[in-house]
Amino acid sequence: MGEQLHSVYREVRAHSLSLCDGLSTEDYCIQPAPEASPPKWHLAHTSWFFETFILLPFLPSYRRPLEAYGYLFNSYYEGIGKQWPRADRGKLSRPTVAEILEYREQVDAAMLELLESPDARGDEIVQLTVLGLHHEQQHQELLVTDIKRNLGVNPLSPALESCAIEQDAEAPTDAIEFLEFDGGLVTIGADESSVSRPTFQEFSFDNESPRHQVYLQPYEIANRLCSNGEYLAFMNDGGYERPELWLAEAWDRVVQEQWNAPLYWTWAEGEWLEYRLLGQRPLCKESPVAHLSYFEADAFARWQGARLPTEAEWESSLRSAKSQEIRDAFGRLWQWTCSAYGCYPGFQPWAGAVGEYNGKFMSGQMVLRGSSCATPKGHARLSYRNFFYPWDRWQYSGVRLARNIEE
Amino acid sequence: MGEQLHSVYREVRAHSLSLCDGLSTEDYCIQPAPEASPPKWHLAHTSWFFETFILLPFLPSYRRPLEAYGYLFNSYYEGIGKQWPRADRGKLSRPTVAEILEYREQVDAAMLELLESPDARGDEIVQLTVLGLHHEQQHQELLVTDIKRNLGVNPLSPALESCAIEQDAEAPTDAIEFLEFDGGLVTIGADESSVSRPTFQEFSFDNESPRHQVYLQPYEIANRLCSNGEYLAFMNDGGYERPELWLAEAWDRVVQEQWNAPLYWTWAEGEWLEYRLLGQRPLCKESPVAHLSYFEADAFARWQGARLPTEAEWESSLRSAKSQEIRDAFGRLWQWTCSAYGCYPGFQPWAGAVGEYNGKFMSGQMVLRGSSCATPKGHARLSYRNFFYPWDRWQYSGVRLARNIEE
Amino acid sequence: MGEQLHSVYREVRAHSLSLCDGLSTEDYCIQPAPEASPPKWHLAHTSWFFETFILLPFLPSYRRPLEAYGYLFNSYYEGIGKQWPRADRGKLSRPTVAEILEYREQVDAAMLELLESPDARGDEIVQLTVLGLHHEQQHQELLVTDIKRNLGVNPLSPALESCAIEQDAEAPTDAIEFLEFDGGLVTIGADESSVSRPTFQEFSFDNESPRHQVYLQPYEIANRLCSNGEYLAFMNDGGYERPELWLAEAWDRVVQEQWNAPLYWTWAEGEWLEYRLLGQRPLCKESPVAHLSYFEADAFARWQGARLPTEAEWESSLRSAKSQEIRDAFGRLWQWTCSAYGCYPGFQPWAGAVGEYNGKFMSGQMVLRGSSCATPKGHARLSYRNFFYPWDRWQYSGVRLARNIEE
Amino acid sequence: MGEQLHSVYREVRAHSLSLCDGLSTEDYCIQPAPEASPPKWHLAHTSWFFETFILLPFLPSYRRPLEAYGYLFNSYYEGIGKQWPRADRGKLSRPTVAEILEYREQVDAAMLELLESPDARGDEIVQLTVLGLHHEQQHQELLVTDIKRNLGVNPLSPALESCAIEQDAEAPTDAIEFLEFDGGLVTIGADESSVSRPTFQEFSFDNESPRHQVYLQPYEIANRLCSNGEYLAFMNDGGYERPELWLAEAWDRVVQEQWNAPLYWTWAEGEWLEYRLLGQRPLCKESPVAHLSYFEADAFARWQGARLPTEAEWESSLRSAKSQEIRDAFGRLWQWTCSAYGCYPGFQPWAGAVGEYNGKFMSGQMVLRGSSCATPKGHARLSYRNFFYPWDRWQYSGVRLARNIEE
Repeated sequence: MGEQLHSVYREVRAHSLSLCDGLSTEDYCIQPAPEASPPKWHLAHTSWFFETFILLPFLPSYRRPLEAYGYLFNSYYEGIGKQWPRADRGKLSRPTVAEILEYREQVDAAMLELLESPDARGDEIVQLTVLGLHHEQQHQELLVTDIKRNLGVNPLSPALESCAIEQDAEAPTDAIEFLEFDGGLVTIGADESSVSRPTFQEFSFDNESPRHQVYLQPYEIANRLCSNGEYLAFMNDGGYERPELWLAEAWDRVVQEQWNAPLYWTWAEGEWLEYRLLGQRPLCKESPVAHLSYFEADAFARWQGARLPTEAEWESSLRSAKSQEIRDAFGRLWQWTCSAYGCYPGFQPWAGAVGEYNGKFMSGQMVLRGSSCATPKGHARLSYRNFFYPWDRWQYSGVRLARNIEE
Repeated sequence: MGEQLHSVYREVRAHSLSLCDGLSTEDYCIQPAPEASPPKWHLAHTSWFFETFILLPFLPSYRRPLEAYGYLFNSYYEGIGKQWPRADRGKLSRPTVAEILEYREQVDAAMLELLESPDARGDEIVQLTVLGLHHEQQHQELLVTDIKRNLGVNPLSPALESCAIEQDAEAPTDAIEFLEFDGGLVTIGADESSVSRPTFQEFSFDNESPRHQVYLQPYEIANRLCSNGEYLAFMNDGGYERPELWLAEAWDRVVQEQWNAPLYWTWAEGEWLEYRLLGQRPLCKESPVAHLSYFEADAFARWQGARLPTEAEWESSLRSAKSQEIRDAFGRLWQWTCSAYGCYPGFQPWAGAVGEYNGKFMSGQMVLRGSSCATPKGHARLSYRNFFYPWDRWQYSGVRLARNIEE
Repeated sequence: MGEQLHSVYREVRAHSLSLCDGLSTEDYCIQPAPEASPPKWHLAHTSWFFETFILLPFLPSYRRPLEAYGYLFNSYYEGIGKQWPRADRGKLSRPTVAEILEYREQVDAAMLELLESPDARGDEIVQLTVLGLHHEQQHQELLVTDIKRNLGVNPLSPALESCAIEQDAEAPTDAIEFLEFDGGLVTIGADESSVSRPTFQEFSFDNESPRHQVYLQPYEIANRLCSNGEYLAFMNDGGYERPELWLAEAWDRVVQEQWNAPLYWTWAEGEWLEYRLLGQRPLCKESPVAHLSYFEADAFARWQGARLPTEAEWESSLRSAKSQEIRDAFGRLWQWTCSAYGCYPGFQPWAGAVGEYNGKFMSGQMVLRGSSCATPKGHARLSYRNFFYPWDRWQYSGVRLARNIEE
Repeated sequence: MGEQLHSVYREVRAHSLSLCDGLSTEDYCIQPAPEASPPKWHLAHTSWFFETFILLPFLPSYRRPLEAYGYLFNSYYEGIGKQWPRADRGKLSRPTVAEILEYREQVDAAMLELLESPDARGDEIVQLTVLGLHHEQQHQELLVTDIKRNLGVNPLSPALESCAIEQDAEAPTDAIEFLEFDGGLVTIGADESSVSRPTFQEFSFDNESPRHQVYLQPYEIANRLCSNGEYLAFMNDGGYERPELWLAEAWDRVVQEQWNAPLYWTWAEGEWLEYRLLGQRPLCKESPVAHLSYFEADAFARWQGARLPTEAEWESSLRSAKSQEIRDAFGRLWQWTCSAYGCYPGFQPWAGAVGEYNGKFMSGQMVLRGSSCATPKGHARLSYRNFFYPWDRWQYSGVRLARNIEE
């Protein structure tokens, strides 16, 4: 298994770099908004993660290139030490991209040495390495969304031709079908066994456990994501001007930030354009509507006479025999649920500093389920719980509707 | 029943005024923080509520004293019209207190006329009146907490002798006992029948319904509230300096606002004082710790090796045969739960503009259960869902611990 | 002279109270903006001034009513101690208005005792009393402007019938005449002798001295203030939409705060109304335009092809033989100059804590000259230097134009 | 003369690039604070200046590479059009550095073509070119200070070895000597003739004119700049803890931003280090103290029992026979004066959009005189008026003391 992990390590780490293929050096440095870190920071931080949690404790010969890296690339681990302020990540021209690539190489060499070393293949190293790789994969998605955020605010609307992940709908939109579910006692969450993270494939985060039972009322869930065309109908029906459709906090946001369309839409010469990684494009009405905040998803669902699913509804519908009728659960857009991100009953954060990974964010955010076109292969699963603030719009987030069944 | 409502109306409205008994005219006008409205605003707004939802639609002869009142005293009803900004309520010296008391009298006279009129005792008027009275009772609690917030920030620490609601513990603190519950399928929420709000006593808010089933894991819940002495032990153990005990958002708040004790505590000459409505007092260690934010309650519970209960745990434990062992569920302090405030499955907001009452606040807030010393008699019930932001500290909010039972 | 001061003291102190004649208790408490203090704070602070600088040092038997007053009513004297934050003055319901009136009485009794005592009529006491009275007069003007600010933001537009200081123009506006001056060496500033503040009548502030020479280029200055009608012409010519007319900081302010008219103007049903102490009134085009910021005065002057006078031009034109042709130098509106507020050559702040009175504000503000309808009688003089931030609009501030004379 | 300008053009433009010699691509992109623009922005904006004011109006064949450049690289010319927000200049990864260098080349080729063209050597082109070159030189200084600001906040304290402009004192500090001046009528400002900007050497900005007379009281001015050692004595005497030494706005800044030393000083292991372009260095006590705000310079002068000179004092002392005794007037550090930046009597901004160059900033800023080690050769002169906000600390700004002479 050590060897297998060895090659997974190579593969995952290489993928982060390949995502940056078309970037100019300048693109690596920009932080267009406090929540969207510079690509070079992602490359450094993911290396810091292996260094901090594995190399420094387990490889006695290892030396950090510069002490300051421990501070500069710590994201939020208070148990490790102080952090360079998140909103200021775009204020660091040094280390340069080249120096960060060197840093990656140094970390990779040491990690591979460690993973190959017969006596160091202990459970803890393996488990932390597996965690580090899934951590890296999460940052791979953020690399894409943060690059898009950078290029997307730029009036030049640059195209990133190397990144062809955003695909148009292949067919006209058919009517949404709602699939019925009886509810009752269902089981969700990740296997106990996967908590111990023995292999890359079986891994799950601590926040996905324990597997547990939830009682659901009868409900129905949409067989597909909502489309740009459907969202346009909401807008044309005054969606952004009607407070009765919005949560109170949402409406404040609409007014203050003057929202009148999804993040990447621009009205130009009589038509809606959408910025995509390949540049400004006329809006494709058949494609699923993307980059919505929870606030927008919720208002749109209310306008539809529907609602967002709970995370338990989402997961159990996809664990059911009808799951094959539920299109685009994975690989297209994350799907907002109406579940606030909190702990499952019996939740235990991991021991040690990695215990800060998920648990401490359990307030104020909403759960998204599924995965998106920016999610790396092998990273998605049924029990996966993504979470963002209800006003966040720069992720690949969309809407799958649900409804109560009146008894 | 009309007559009964008539006298309940008189009683409830009179109670609002009696809460202001010891106030100086100046005390009525102050807004010490955006969330704590001036007492005179509460007196006006609760009158506006009856006027707007009952008198103007149902009593053709009724005239609002000044058109501007419709704007000045609308809290957040977008369906009704624009609102004077909430944070600026303390910037209005006019109408004066005397003018607002006149306004109350005019509204009361008209309401009593309407309630006595034989042909106007329709269901809708009765239901809206019942709602208006419960609304008034909610503002009675806010009157107390907002007055305390005003006097409590004043360096003179004025005493409000007329308001003797805060009582010391009568006995030394005994050890907390945790009461065990099996979990399984439990039923929570308010009766269908009460949704139609036919009587003042049977009333419940729309957010308490539908009654529904929830599946719980085995858990145990504390038989009493946590005390000042216990909270002091947390502080003395570095509670406010240890980020590992806090949610990420909570820790940001601790650092930014330099929290180092509950809201009304002051360290003076070697001892902790607590501001209470009767003035500065040495901290009573046996009394339940009050005016905690959710963030503090959560950190304290974590330090205790425990957690906060979910709202379903709280409610079903109090619906059980063991409920008589659960002390101070009502009448002392609201109890933070770890449940984010959201809709129950099948939730339907009321029709019309009063539909904005509860539903639109279902993001970002946490549920509190029980009631406090500031809650008017007859206003509390098992299904009641109070909600505030996790950083709010000016309510009478405390901690009841819960724990998982390891199987 | 002691007796004379005694009676001036009574008179000045009484005038502060008479300015509050028509106020409701509520009006005394409101702080509509950080810069506009509650009337009761002015009444307390002016008493604190006598107490702090005279009674506590010179009258051994004197006791402050409450220690906290020393903190609550200190405006900005770091040499005296900490200050309750200026922006939070409206958050104090206590002490009540009645308690502050008692405080005034206690201070007055002690001051009169001291001023009558034969051995305590030393120069220092006299000088500080004279200063305290001029200080009180400054707050008399602020009382008026801060009350107007409070009532003026209130949608009820309350009228303060007792305060009839704002008068309409008595005659149609004639064309502005510009009076020519040769410039050359002129002398401005207050007499040395007045620096020692021996009498109330001869007093001047430290910032008005030393009297000194200034060299002026030839210039001309307008014989009257600019009118509402003239300002309306500026507005109708796109004044608030043309950045080329504005200083850079001014334009930022116009955009951010959406200025489109002077502070108290409202467009309603096809005409401009102006809020005045007697309530909303149709704009009187012949009256001088009031409540302009420096930024607006400067932009308007530029649009006129003119400029604002320097303070030396203003003063020396009024010290000249042509001064009788210069109308409304005093008693109508303060006149913005284009002089930044700074020290005169050889300026010495007063010794002791009162040295903080004027000198430490010598950055960022602009000088205004003359006096206004809110300035108490006997407070104005040719050398008087008033100063406010260039964006301040709530003072009685207007425009007198000046121009260069091309040689 | 056209040929001479031609070669000055080449030289000045080349110098901007040479200042960037040691930069990594990343260094070109960073905006460490809203007021410190990315180097690549400076390179683009200075090209935009020539393009906008000369090429587009006078060279019909010229085409802007991308329309968006007109918006992205407009600094503050409202007369030209909208501007990309200043604080967001660091959010643009595109155009890349290479693209901006191409842009420079295109502009240079066109400019040289124009300057060589016989019929296009009109006065206006020459004058605007001269202005553009002085504009470029101003940005050369900003390039250095903004690069230093970027590298200086970086915890890695990178050294820019190519930039050796900051030199240590060559000798121990001798006692300051104050040179006496009689005052009286003096003449300052730039020659009328230079207003027409006919040659690069004789150029002056519009704000330096007209030459005019000023009347000065007798004064004395220090023969050298104040040193780090002298400033340290101020700090050791509690300089940053004593509000009586500071202007009110200054003290607010000290408290809010927790100033306790000049911008680039760090206390580390028992000694003060100063960040310089060559990296962290132990503080050289003999060198002039640099990177002070006006607020600090003013407080330090007050502590010294002195003051800052007025700009007229500064200029006329250097126009006098004693000027050779005044060391480091140029080439070391800009010297704060106590003069607020305003217009000279008779000031006329240039006609057209370049009229926004200087005049519209005449509020809120203070004048600095002399020049610094970052000022390009040939850019300094006696009448030069630099201006920054009183809290700005990232420029090469220091202190030369002055004093009144008591008569």
